[in-house]
Amino acid sequence: MPDQFDPTPDDRFSFGLWTVGHRGHDPFGAPTRPPIEPEEITARLAEVGAWGVALHDEDLIPYGAERQERDRIVKRFRDAVRSAGLVVPMTTVNLFTQPVFRDGAFTAADPAVRRHALAKTMAAIELAAELEAPVFVLWGGREGIESGAARDPRLALERYREALDFLCEFVRSQQLELRFALEAKPNEPRGHLYLPTTGHMLHFISTLAHPEMVGVNPEMAHEAMAGLSFHQAVGQALWAGKLFHIDLNAQYGPRYDQDFRFGAEDLKEAFLTVALLERAGYQGARHFDCRAYRSEDDADVYASFALGCMRNYKILASKARVFDGDPEFLEARREAGAEQLSEPTPPYSQQEADRIRAADHAAGIDVGRGRRHERADQLMVELILGAAE
Amino acid sequence: MPDQFDPTPDDRFSFGLWTVGHRGHDPFGAPTRPPIEPEEITARLAEVGAWGVALHDEDLIPYGAERQERDRIVKRFRDAVRSAGLVVPMTTVNLFTQPVFRDGAFTAADPAVRRHALAKTMAAIELAAELEAPVFVLWGGREGIESGAARDPRLALERYREALDFLCEFVRSQQLELRFALEAKPNEPRGHLYLPTTGHMLHFISTLAHPEMVGVNPEMAHEAMAGLSFHQAVGQALWAGKLFHIDLNAQYGPRYDQDFRFGAEDLKEAFLTVALLERAGYQGARHFDCRAYRSEDDADVYASFALGCMRNYKILASKARVFDGDPEFLEARREAGAEQLSEPTPPYSQQEADRIRAADHAAGIDVGRGRRHERADQLMVELILGAAE
Amino acid sequence: MPDQFDPTPDDRFSFGLWTVGHRGHDPFGAPTRPPIEPEEITARLAEVGAWGVALHDEDLIPYGAERQERDRIVKRFRDAVRSAGLVVPMTTVNLFTQPVFRDGAFTAADPAVRRHALAKTMAAIELAAELEAPVFVLWGGREGIESGAARDPRLALERYREALDFLCEFVRSQQLELRFALEAKPNEPRGHLYLPTTGHMLHFISTLAHPEMVGVNPEMAHEAMAGLSFHQAVGQALWAGKLFHIDLNAQYGPRYDQDFRFGAEDLKEAFLTVALLERAGYQGARHFDCRAYRSEDDADVYASFALGCMRNYKILASKARVFDGDPEFLEARREAGAEQLSEPTPPYSQQEADRIRAADHAAGIDVGRGRRHERADQLMVELILGAAE
Amino acid sequence: MPDQFDPTPDDRFSFGLWTVGHRGHDPFGAPTRPPIEPEEITARLAEVGAWGVALHDEDLIPYGAERQERDRIVKRFRDAVRSAGLVVPMTTVNLFTQPVFRDGAFTAADPAVRRHALAKTMAAIELAAELEAPVFVLWGGREGIESGAARDPRLALERYREALDFLCEFVRSQQLELRFALEAKPNEPRGHLYLPTTGHMLHFISTLAHPEMVGVNPEMAHEAMAGLSFHQAVGQALWAGKLFHIDLNAQYGPRYDQDFRFGAEDLKEAFLTVALLERAGYQGARHFDCRAYRSEDDADVYASFALGCMRNYKILASKARVFDGDPEFLEARREAGAEQLSEPTPPYSQQEADRIRAADHAAGIDVGRGRRHERADQLMVELILGAAE
Repeated sequence: MPDQFDPTPDDRFSFGLWTVGHRGHDPFGAPTRPPIEPEEITARLAEVGAWGVALHDEDLIPYGAERQERDRIVKRFRDAVRSAGLVVPMTTVNLFTQPVFRDGAFTAADPAVRRHALAKTMAAIELAAELEAPVFVLWGGREGIESGAARDPRLALERYREALDFLCEFVRSQQLELRFALEAKPNEPRGHLYLPTTGHMLHFISTLAHPEMVGVNPEMAHEAMAGLSFHQAVGQALWAGKLFHIDLNAQYGPRYDQDFRFGAEDLKEAFLTVALLERAGYQGARHFDCRAYRSEDDADVYASFALGCMRNYKILASKARVFDGDPEFLEARREAGAEQLSEPTPPYSQQEADRIRAADHAAGIDVGRGRRHERADQLMVELILGAAE
Repeated sequence: MPDQFDPTPDDRFSFGLWTVGHRGHDPFGAPTRPPIEPEEITARLAEVGAWGVALHDEDLIPYGAERQERDRIVKRFRDAVRSAGLVVPMTTVNLFTQPVFRDGAFTAADPAVRRHALAKTMAAIELAAELEAPVFVLWGGREGIESGAARDPRLALERYREALDFLCEFVRSQQLELRFALEAKPNEPRGHLYLPTTGHMLHFISTLAHPEMVGVNPEMAHEAMAGLSFHQAVGQALWAGKLFHIDLNAQYGPRYDQDFRFGAEDLKEAFLTVALLERAGYQGARHFDCRAYRSEDDADVYASFALGCMRNYKILASKARVFDGDPEFLEARREAGAEQLSEPTPPYSQQEADRIRAADHAAGIDVGRGRRHERADQLMVELILGAAE
Repeated sequence: MPDQFDPTPDDRFSFGLWTVGHRGHDPFGAPTRPPIEPEEITARLAEVGAWGVALHDEDLIPYGAERQERDRIVKRFRDAVRSAGLVVPMTTVNLFTQPVFRDGAFTAADPAVRRHALAKTMAAIELAAELEAPVFVLWGGREGIESGAARDPRLALERYREALDFLCEFVRSQQLELRFALEAKPNEPRGHLYLPTTGHMLHFISTLAHPEMVGVNPEMAHEAMAGLSFHQAVGQALWAGKLFHIDLNAQYGPRYDQDFRFGAEDLKEAFLTVALLERAGYQGARHFDCRAYRSEDDADVYASFALGCMRNYKILASKARVFDGDPEFLEARREAGAEQLSEPTPPYSQQEADRIRAADHAAGIDVGRGRRHERADQLMVELILGAAE
Repeated sequence: MPDQFDPTPDDRFSFGLWTVGHRGHDPFGAPTRPPIEPEEITARLAEVGAWGVALHDEDLIPYGAERQERDRIVKRFRDAVRSAGLVVPMTTVNLFTQPVFRDGAFTAADPAVRRHALAKTMAAIELAAELEAPVFVLWGGREGIESGAARDPRLALERYREALDFLCEFVRSQQLELRFALEAKPNEPRGHLYLPTTGHMLHFISTLAHPEMVGVNPEMAHEAMAGLSFHQAVGQALWAGKLFHIDLNAQYGPRYDQDFRFGAEDLKEAFLTVALLERAGYQGARHFDCRAYRSEDDADVYASFALGCMRNYKILASKARVFDGDPEFLEARREAGAEQLSEPTPPYSQQEADRIRAADHAAGIDVGRGRRHERADQLMVELILGAAE
């Protein structure tokens, strides 16, 4: 059913090697899909209309590979990406799989582990440069605890900050254009992770020596695991000028990290997110960090899962254009206060304070008038359902 | 059973008028306890060993009261506080009960509502000054949405920031010593609140014109509603130098805001929090923002509920002294890496980077050695249970 | 915008007096809407296309009203219902608002409270009979605990069972047609409620003396508060022949009871629920147990909120007809195993057991073949979004 | 620190091979501990004071093993169990790891998969008989969905019921004493599992042909994942005479399945559970279904993790004896209604109904008297903390 919602590279959709290449294993089950070469994944992504392919260092290069093998692998992959007509919009470093990081990487108690994490990240940054990736994601999957008995969270944050400052200096010393995007998650695989939400990450960035080099990579499923609104997290990141990357997927509330196909859950939040990204003119990758159900085979990973992610984004984006352009919707939202909210509160001055306090503002407000949110929301729901277009 | 755990004013325990004075109503039930005068509450708090009493403007002064009545009320209350030997360590403003704030206060779409919120807050700040309260809490109970249809979160945050900047200037203009403490909550009474966790608040503060005047007031139940670790939230606030106040209570995970007696749930997190506060030398109020079960009468509100909060803190604090002083515990925590984590990672330099990368740090790490967290945690649990003292 | 999705009485939509009549108060806020007479509510419901109106005893008759006043009120309401052309498909008893029930009704420790609860329920059953309501809902809003210190759950369940057995005998003695529908909720207003989900209720019913008289009333928001799938709860109730009533609304996962407009959250679960109800030929009321946002006025309560609930049901029902009738959807679901699942497993016999064990069934199964759930789900999502009709 | 809390076989503590033998892998990390032979695990369990060892078929016998190899393995294990002085109180079948079960076992759409599941379970039942295990647990880890598009939950439950009826007949035909214990879980590894809580399981059992052969195996972490009270789940199972087995561990609310050391989280719920089990005279295994943190090595798996589970049970059990025996506690609980609740409500009769309705019971109830739950709870908390013994 090729139609207007089928993706093209102009849509800037990207997938990680670890997403479409996921083999279907989980904590209770063995892999269900055979391994696939990165080059094969890249070719298939191009076929279904993706624009970019992202990766962890270990998605491509086995942990501990010798330099020569590593170079051969990177060259082969670069050629494959180029011949597929894709780009590498983001890379990242895996600091969570190997047993050496079992109790943290940048926040490991053992200084040798912290140094090893820095060394691995520096190597991954060089890989990013070779692949011309403009964004480097850091997800601290092991930066946390199961028990607070032997950890003071202040020390852990101090070590975390040192690591980021170190890496920023490294990037500067190499004169790379690379920007970091930090990804938060509340828990899993650790009991509690440090910097559990995008809000905590944004604060952490404000404490760095080079905050301008560091932004966030909010992930839809991760915010949902804390019961938080994803589009509000994205909104706070955009407001702060810090939306350097985004991970789109789906999740059914607080539970294990599901990483479902984008659009598979919470269509309202998905719509609000797409509408906000499009309205804000976000220029980065629309990246899908998710994986097909374990029950699926490779054919459906591309034809249904990957294509579905991209189609759902485009379907929602086309509705967002109606939402932000059609007079009926604009009027309903105006009635519910959308425009009023853009009117600033005046800055402080003695006169302004006096004026505000003298006037009985409460007296002039019609507290009986409804705010019309039910109407605006119902119209939006009918737009999402395709009943109001 | 008066014993070493019974509170004294030196312990700096405080309660809000709205806590011990809560009448037991809930969304499905009528009040079960009669109203009590603030002066009576104050006297009873003194009797059970509290140090301070906190309040919202409306806990004391009816909304819309005339100046004369207001002054009379304030005077009577000041006298009562003084004669009871208490202090007022914190006050706050109620921007959530009145219908005028039904769709926000500082983030209301209607500019008149925002001005009214500022006026009400300025009046409450004057009350704070009269009561010599050093901390002014702001909890934005209505700053949020049920539906994102007619709200761009970026605009809401912009309005929120303006309000805080305005209020900081007001405090400066009045040459008050007052500091603000912002309290986050993920939801309830709104579907999603802006700035839903302490992490989001800390970031928000970094965007203000006078960040040095503004800190946070983390609440145990509110962080638990997002499934987050409270002692980690407190840790991030302490690390940032922003723990201006704290709200202690208890909550059984993500659900309605329970505000149970401190120590009534999650004894491990309660212990870790007390241990962190004591270790950090926190000097502010140990404030309990909770209320007795609806089934209780006034006698038990003081004799069991309020006394219980304070006793539980002291019991845990006495265990914290063992935890941070007894050689067995220190050794177990040391073995689990507690001290190693305080060793800094060296700052970046070309040489340091080269050194880190040249050395095969992974090779020198014994990945088979257990980190001993189970042992440290089990010892801590036995300490909490009183089986290891 | 009158169209095919506007409701008519044939659609069997009903609302409680307490839903459209809700005054907008919440734990942190005063009422925002004026009270409305039950007769006025009834007339307005008829105007917007509803079929039925439901009620608690106290929605109509003040607690403690004298017999004469009560009879006058009931007569006036019956006349209003009749003249509006509505029916009363369900009534219930309020065993949660009054302080007397602060620690339970049927499971109260005090036997006098339990007897009072029975008396109140018998009176409410007589009201049900007068209003010709065929279903009597029981929601045990106070049947639970905050603390298990003084409650053995086995005793509470025993008292609960006795109460139901008593009430069934009462209905039989009165030769009424009335059937009971039990409504589960995990928590709020109590810390933990007994019989927290529809599954627990179904088990409880199996222990009664007259299980045939008692079914369930699953509520969408309540199941979502425990993170459970609502359509699976409805499915288990239908499978057991126990779906006597249903409460439709919306909820954003584990948090306070939101009771949003049906369709306002989780459109996928809403669709699956509607599709299941329609497929199963459910003949009961499509009842909406929800309330408009506190920010709304009375006009929007009917024009947007109540109408929205009903329109969303009809929009989803029209999609369900496509889902269950269109060859493309049936084929996609067939490929994903929908039909195979209806093939029974043979009952036990020695021969069957031998046959099963002899054959190497695993050998004949193509474990590499995808189950096509991603394709079926993506098609369903596009149907919900109106992109695949 | 050998003391009164160190376990002995009389305490009836058991562990699964998969618990102490867990290798520390998780969805984001490779194994951190080497594999250990079942015989070695058995010996070590005996050393630390356990009474029993439990297992899945595949914990012992590789999937697809030939008969001869299988018999050799079983014999070796039986000998090891005997020489260690342990028993096998429970076995179970793994219907979740192999790809063949990727979309269900008893509820798989493919009838061949369902038959394979039955065959595998019959083989595992024979193993149970050889090991003289009196209880056979069934956990349907794959019995669920990620998407409801192609699954009618009624059909799935029908297939599930058929499987259980088949297996009961098989056990009867073999004249075994074996009883089944069904284990519920709300989600993970599937998006939504059928029969998600102990309540759903209890209902399901009531629909079987031989309900007397089937009980439940409630797991603490699984109920906590749905935010439910574990001791209430255990209470409902005991009330129904269906507590055939129990899985003790710890979990921090709704999130991924943590399976922490018993006592590591929620000490209050752990205490209430132990108190209920001891009070009810539960005679089954005190089984720990949990695993050590991934950061630990084998030494601590036994010395801290396994020993900690057992010690925490015994510490709590010793407190439970005080709770149920000491006059101060009994009096505080009596005041809070603990005894009153055991007074039955009279059964229905016309006279009783008349009597109840005639009397104004509400008039005789002192609604102002507190129920003293705060006091009972605070005393219990102090008992848990070791401050009130």
